Amino acid sequence: MPQTTGFLHMVYFWGREGADPGDAAKLAEGARTHLPGIPGVLRLEVGFPAGSKRAVVDNSYAIALLVEFADAAAEEVYQNHPDHQRFIAECSQYWSRVQVYDSVLPAAS
Amino acid sequence: MPQTTGFLHMVYFWGREGADPGDAAKLAEGARTHLPGIPGVLRLEVGFPAGSKRAVVDNSYAIALLVEFADAAAEEVYQNHPDHQRFIAECSQYWSRVQVYDSVLPAAS
Repeated sequence: MPQTTGFLHMVYFWGREGADPGDAAKLAEGARTHLPGIPGVLRLEVGFPAGSKRAVVDNSYAIALLVEFADAAAEEVYQNHPDHQRFIAECSQYWSRVQVYDSVLPAAS
Repeated sequence: MPQTTGFLHMVYFWGREGADPGDAAKLAEGARTHLPGIPGVLRLEVGFPAGSKRAVVDNSYAIALLVEFADAAAEEVYQNHPDHQRFIAECSQYWSRVQVYDSVLPAAS
């Protein structure tokens, strides 16, 4: 990694009720197409529910998105970037709800 | 990273109502003390709410924990490891609710 990660942007997308089973794959493809090239993105991962059996684990989402940045300013650039807007415009048809957790990592970690 | 990450274990902890403001730091310290040395942990990060202003972002949690593994089997080892049990025994006093999302990453990512 060329730069130290200091900011985790974690997004969980839930599909629409009665959604086509292929929607999650389309959403994943849209994320991979539009988002990794945005300046400041140090790492981008698209994950799918692991199906863990423990009660505390939520497997109901369609895809998870982990995007790492150096800092909050870099995440702000990403939010406002045309490619991010394009992702939303083209792919929001595939989700009904989004839950976001943004975390800062202490400098020492 | 010595091995390719294929599994993200993402945990959000909420503090108890009326909790001491230092509880989040104690929880973070407990995670950093007990968890990174468990076999199979490729990466462990403890994050704090970034305070992002957008409505879709949940800043109400106390700490976020990202743990990366090669695969689901490695995460299972972690769940059952005595050091993980020790973390729960010593630190569960600092949380009221835990939300977990486990994600598998496609091999190509």
